[in-house]
Amino acid sequence: MTSSKSQDSPSPPVGLWLIGGRGGVAACSIFGMLLLRRNAVPPVGLVTAQSAFHKAGLIPFDRVLIGGHEIRAARLVDEIRAFHRTNRVFLPDWIDLLEAELDDCDARIRWGTLSGASSAIRGLAAPDVPRDASPWEAVRRLQQDLAAFQQEHGLRHVVVVNVASTEPPADSAAFPTSWEELEKALAGGELSPPPSTLYAVAALSEGCSYINFTPSLGASLPALTELAEIRRTRHMGCDGKTGETLMKSVLAPMYRARNLQVLSWVGHNIFGNLDGRILDDPQHKATKVRSKDHLVGDILGYAPKTVVSIEYVEDMGDWKTAWDHIHFSGFLGTPMVLQFIWQGCDSLLAAPLVLDLFRLTERADRAGISGTMPFLAPFFKSPYGVSDNDFFSQHGALLDWVASLSKDA
Amino acid sequence: MTSSKSQDSPSPPVGLWLIGGRGGVAACSIFGMLLLRRNAVPPVGLVTAQSAFHKAGLIPFDRVLIGGHEIRAARLVDEIRAFHRTNRVFLPDWIDLLEAELDDCDARIRWGTLSGASSAIRGLAAPDVPRDASPWEAVRRLQQDLAAFQQEHGLRHVVVVNVASTEPPADSAAFPTSWEELEKALAGGELSPPPSTLYAVAALSEGCSYINFTPSLGASLPALTELAEIRRTRHMGCDGKTGETLMKSVLAPMYRARNLQVLSWVGHNIFGNLDGRILDDPQHKATKVRSKDHLVGDILGYAPKTVVSIEYVEDMGDWKTAWDHIHFSGFLGTPMVLQFIWQGCDSLLAAPLVLDLFRLTERADRAGISGTMPFLAPFFKSPYGVSDNDFFSQHGALLDWVASLSKDA
Amino acid sequence: MTSSKSQDSPSPPVGLWLIGGRGGVAACSIFGMLLLRRNAVPPVGLVTAQSAFHKAGLIPFDRVLIGGHEIRAARLVDEIRAFHRTNRVFLPDWIDLLEAELDDCDARIRWGTLSGASSAIRGLAAPDVPRDASPWEAVRRLQQDLAAFQQEHGLRHVVVVNVASTEPPADSAAFPTSWEELEKALAGGELSPPPSTLYAVAALSEGCSYINFTPSLGASLPALTELAEIRRTRHMGCDGKTGETLMKSVLAPMYRARNLQVLSWVGHNIFGNLDGRILDDPQHKATKVRSKDHLVGDILGYAPKTVVSIEYVEDMGDWKTAWDHIHFSGFLGTPMVLQFIWQGCDSLLAAPLVLDLFRLTERADRAGISGTMPFLAPFFKSPYGVSDNDFFSQHGALLDWVASLSKDA
Amino acid sequence: MTSSKSQDSPSPPVGLWLIGGRGGVAACSIFGMLLLRRNAVPPVGLVTAQSAFHKAGLIPFDRVLIGGHEIRAARLVDEIRAFHRTNRVFLPDWIDLLEAELDDCDARIRWGTLSGASSAIRGLAAPDVPRDASPWEAVRRLQQDLAAFQQEHGLRHVVVVNVASTEPPADSAAFPTSWEELEKALAGGELSPPPSTLYAVAALSEGCSYINFTPSLGASLPALTELAEIRRTRHMGCDGKTGETLMKSVLAPMYRARNLQVLSWVGHNIFGNLDGRILDDPQHKATKVRSKDHLVGDILGYAPKTVVSIEYVEDMGDWKTAWDHIHFSGFLGTPMVLQFIWQGCDSLLAAPLVLDLFRLTERADRAGISGTMPFLAPFFKSPYGVSDNDFFSQHGALLDWVASLSKDA
Repeated sequence: MTSSKSQDSPSPPVGLWLIGGRGGVAACSIFGMLLLRRNAVPPVGLVTAQSAFHKAGLIPFDRVLIGGHEIRAARLVDEIRAFHRTNRVFLPDWIDLLEAELDDCDARIRWGTLSGASSAIRGLAAPDVPRDASPWEAVRRLQQDLAAFQQEHGLRHVVVVNVASTEPPADSAAFPTSWEELEKALAGGELSPPPSTLYAVAALSEGCSYINFTPSLGASLPALTELAEIRRTRHMGCDGKTGETLMKSVLAPMYRARNLQVLSWVGHNIFGNLDGRILDDPQHKATKVRSKDHLVGDILGYAPKTVVSIEYVEDMGDWKTAWDHIHFSGFLGTPMVLQFIWQGCDSLLAAPLVLDLFRLTERADRAGISGTMPFLAPFFKSPYGVSDNDFFSQHGALLDWVASLSKDA
Repeated sequence: MTSSKSQDSPSPPVGLWLIGGRGGVAACSIFGMLLLRRNAVPPVGLVTAQSAFHKAGLIPFDRVLIGGHEIRAARLVDEIRAFHRTNRVFLPDWIDLLEAELDDCDARIRWGTLSGASSAIRGLAAPDVPRDASPWEAVRRLQQDLAAFQQEHGLRHVVVVNVASTEPPADSAAFPTSWEELEKALAGGELSPPPSTLYAVAALSEGCSYINFTPSLGASLPALTELAEIRRTRHMGCDGKTGETLMKSVLAPMYRARNLQVLSWVGHNIFGNLDGRILDDPQHKATKVRSKDHLVGDILGYAPKTVVSIEYVEDMGDWKTAWDHIHFSGFLGTPMVLQFIWQGCDSLLAAPLVLDLFRLTERADRAGISGTMPFLAPFFKSPYGVSDNDFFSQHGALLDWVASLSKDA
Repeated sequence: MTSSKSQDSPSPPVGLWLIGGRGGVAACSIFGMLLLRRNAVPPVGLVTAQSAFHKAGLIPFDRVLIGGHEIRAARLVDEIRAFHRTNRVFLPDWIDLLEAELDDCDARIRWGTLSGASSAIRGLAAPDVPRDASPWEAVRRLQQDLAAFQQEHGLRHVVVVNVASTEPPADSAAFPTSWEELEKALAGGELSPPPSTLYAVAALSEGCSYINFTPSLGASLPALTELAEIRRTRHMGCDGKTGETLMKSVLAPMYRARNLQVLSWVGHNIFGNLDGRILDDPQHKATKVRSKDHLVGDILGYAPKTVVSIEYVEDMGDWKTAWDHIHFSGFLGTPMVLQFIWQGCDSLLAAPLVLDLFRLTERADRAGISGTMPFLAPFFKSPYGVSDNDFFSQHGALLDWVASLSKDA
Repeated sequence: MTSSKSQDSPSPPVGLWLIGGRGGVAACSIFGMLLLRRNAVPPVGLVTAQSAFHKAGLIPFDRVLIGGHEIRAARLVDEIRAFHRTNRVFLPDWIDLLEAELDDCDARIRWGTLSGASSAIRGLAAPDVPRDASPWEAVRRLQQDLAAFQQEHGLRHVVVVNVASTEPPADSAAFPTSWEELEKALAGGELSPPPSTLYAVAALSEGCSYINFTPSLGASLPALTELAEIRRTRHMGCDGKTGETLMKSVLAPMYRARNLQVLSWVGHNIFGNLDGRILDDPQHKATKVRSKDHLVGDILGYAPKTVVSIEYVEDMGDWKTAWDHIHFSGFLGTPMVLQFIWQGCDSLLAAPLVLDLFRLTERADRAGISGTMPFLAPFFKSPYGVSDNDFFSQHGALLDWVASLSKDA
């Protein structure tokens, strides 16, 4: 990350652009932001609502305009109603209250791209999604959407957050490592990257910030870090750390601190939302499992046996349940066991983090930071440019950065 | 804590004196130290065996002599054999190997005191335990045991660790706050403190360090901190943080960092060792529950509903099993649940911490520290003089202190 | 139980009278019955909806009229709305749909009695609840309510079900064992039984059936079984078997069948509904714990260590969560562990059983059965007159009785 | 099954022949039987030790001689010592006591066959295992071993029990359905069945009883039931019901009886014994998962979503841990959850059932029963010829059969 001077006044509005704009995480993020804006709910789950962040000059939610890309035909308010009924969360009165505002957001959601998309994703797509002639055409179309959003609403800056379904694994080694070569390969039609990368190229080229909340390839390429630096913008990822992996990043340091030897760490996850349906495809699942699995060994400094599974169980809806079984050796080789069961509503764990990431990234823009943002590591399973996966170290670094902002202000 | 110059060479041997010297924790500590000394086991579970502690000049185990006080008639090696059979831990070959060395330790264990002891404790006592004429007589007898131990073996210093059964709650407000007055009240027979306090008075008066690994009153009195300062010695406590409470001190900061609101935290503990049998007495249990219960609210900064229970279930032996149910509110008031089940062999969780505390306290003596030792907070449920119960903050402070020692060395 | 001839046509309506008529279980029972009557929900959880019961001539719900006694001031529809919001169950549309019908039921709920009530119960009571001059006066007033209900609506029969809060334990040995003596003692003002017994006396004297769904004393007296026989009516109880205890009655027979030796069975229950608030009073809790605890030993034929706790945790609402830890010895003395965690909405587990019991009891009336009804044992933790607590034996006996009815029909 | 007259005196000794004779289940069965014979342990876990079986004329263990087939080079007593150390079960004194007797059994274990074996099994085999020229040659060799065992020791009857590792799935539809054709195909070298079937053919042809304790194909063929009838002998299987599936067969009937709708039943199993290492091969695992998975739907009469996984986690040793998550719908469509965690030592759960099956099968021989033995269904996940998977129905049928024997005796 590189820091430079920048003006600090957030007076013109700022845009939050969500890839997968009508999915569960996006819907909960939008709905939650509208409720927070009206003070209809306390800001529980929002990290940036805490006192440590009060003096950091973060943008208030009434200065935010939302738009996005989406490939499914749906109405945001209907998605929220369905979410309420399936998962037994929210008060229905809130939905009635916000119906018009939700429709207003909906009107700013544009068609995403299917260029490079897997068949599982194509299976969800509306017939109206434009068939882009090439990846490069797709990038240009997506870029125009972002530019139009910014110009039409006089936005000071736009932060793009990818909250779409997880893609199959992509081999990042197959991509050129400089932006010049990558751009040439894309423009020349020699490469067919997954949609997440096209969205990232479009966002960064347009000067937007780009946050990869998924484990998809997205901007996880050296060439795109270079592009961010060139365009004086910033990106971060990947894969929001919401539940089971958050627990891993909290408990593994305990084992390390106490010198207790983890023999095996088995984690089974079941859930039934749309993300789960896509992950039920073995190709897509591989990306997610990889992202969830490296952490324990990284923190401990040795490699215990690990098992990670994610199973699609439709009747669970958005309620992701994880059972983790940690078999460890204590003093004098005594085997002991810790098990935990996490029962959380997945999209509602993710949504406040999306809002936090938006606010912190927007602030980083005003602080003149470009490239990756390592201080955002506590939000991610696989933070770009950060090798320390201890949650509390990461959280400490975030607090330090926030404190440095407060001093400036 | 106060720091002053001191010689750094540990060449004369050092004493470790265990109150409750034939109990489960003491037996496992002694047995483990003898095995570690022979490199018969890897130092799993020993915090001070990690590389961060290598340059801190900690005492090696072959320079340590063990003694103690005990009120039960038993043979240490038999206690270890029974522990092995009941709890299915250790290799039996180890016990055969160490039989003579264990008997050697046994020979240095002296009768403790029953002055001020509860009826539950008296029920365990051997008929031969001396009936001290007064608390003051008891202190003098205990003191003589410590002095004899030190002189006979030419010990540079003695660290006393209380690993005896938990006592009923004592009202520390009823005690004088200065050592002068407390000494006068004790000598005059006006006070009848519990045994743990008599052991602490004896140890500190004799210039020994005193570690309260239990939730008993012990040295948790301002007058005794003053005595430690007067005698240029040190003390710390209380209540070793081995399992369920360790988890609380790790997980509560996660809730705080993520601004998730804990609604209730229910913890049920079952176990069947001697400590459990004593805790089955409601008076004794009250002390333990109080020590386990304050932590969550302290860390969170608000007071969720908490329930803590400890039940004596004899067939569980030393295998303490805890079920914790944490009901929390996430984004938009969504109630979620985390549960954990901890299955650990309690005395074998405690034993390496006793050895760690001994080594670190002995080092603090050589570093010239007197009074309380806040850097030892990560080892305790209710650390003296420390209000921050976040495990990782505490552990960071310990590492900082150890790093400062390394710089000196 | 005694059987005699009886007419079989259910054409005139039948009454269901609920003691605690606006409490959680009553509200869910009433609400559920109204929904079932409209076929708005499938009959999940209703035992008598299964094919084995189709030919037994059970009463359809459109022939049922509901009334009750209650000591709290509340509106049924408001209680259901609050239950919905607190516990995130039901569709709100259902409540709107049934508002008028619920108010109609409400209008048939009369003031219960506080004669003999504990202070915890008195604390809930509306100021308007009549202060009965004596227990006998209370019985007479309650009886008049039942008679008026029956006459006003031309009811063929009334089944009274006690779903009020659990009372403190009452010593049944202190009561006369014949109805003649009990009646004399009541009329003479020599006895002051708890309300549940007054309701039972009133119901049975009036010829109503009486079902004790709680662990309260109620009709658990030989003198009241005699009264039921005299009045050719019937009663059964006690304490509905809905969750954790149901599991015990299912799992303990597995241990018995496999000759695996249960060492200890620990069960902890947390919940936060009104019943829980009353149970938080140690006196009331004792009754419940006793009812939950005897079962395991009864089934196994020996007495393992058992622990049963019930804790009031308000934020859990009606979601009762139980953790059971079963430590057992297998082949060659190998200790093994089974744990289960039950997360159920308590009133919604109870409600269909109340409806089942009503239908089966009403059928027993037409079958001419008087006294206790052992075939209803699978519904109770402590079934009157039944010593076999194996759930499947009990369920088999129910199916046999139902099959015998089908043959008659 | 067909029943005919038979003499009832068990005076000549009887043989128990174990396929996989030095594996974990065999070793625990043998070790346990030797301990039971000496009354060194109480018969916990042995179904046939209960009073209901006392008058059934079952064979006492001092009339039993053990032999077996095995493809690994090992010494039984060493396997038991390793089992003790790895799994922390047994008293080591017992092993010393029985060393000579175990060696004596060892001397009666012969080389099994690798004809038709998977590469995973071949990987375990000793170099000395004979390479049979054809399946038919293998059958003849195995048969000779059984005949020699019987003749040499004057055995009245031999019961063969397959406790070897699980084989990959075999398509039973590919085999001829009559014994005449199957024999011809085998003799003509047209078929290459898995080892389990060769053992079964050898056993049944020789007039031995054959019990398939594994999910392998074994005797699960109509042609082999015919062979059993022709030879007036008997067989039963398959797959011993020891832990998680036992729980399913106990809990699913509870859901059925209470008309609660199971939405999904997810079961994850982890363990680390040799059976687990073989099951880690995806082909072998498929057989096991299939056997564990059908039961819930069979009992409920509808098909909820199910997930079954078995993972090899070496450090768990023989301690199989299963987590089951049962999501069910209660009254008014309310979703609720039951979870259980089973922690059992797998081979020690299986071993007493092997001894029970041996005793009951030997008794069935004397009772003149031939063909399948449906009364043994409670011991199996997929009982031959039995469609009712309700554990208590099955156990009731066993008790009925045993009671009928007692009447005869």
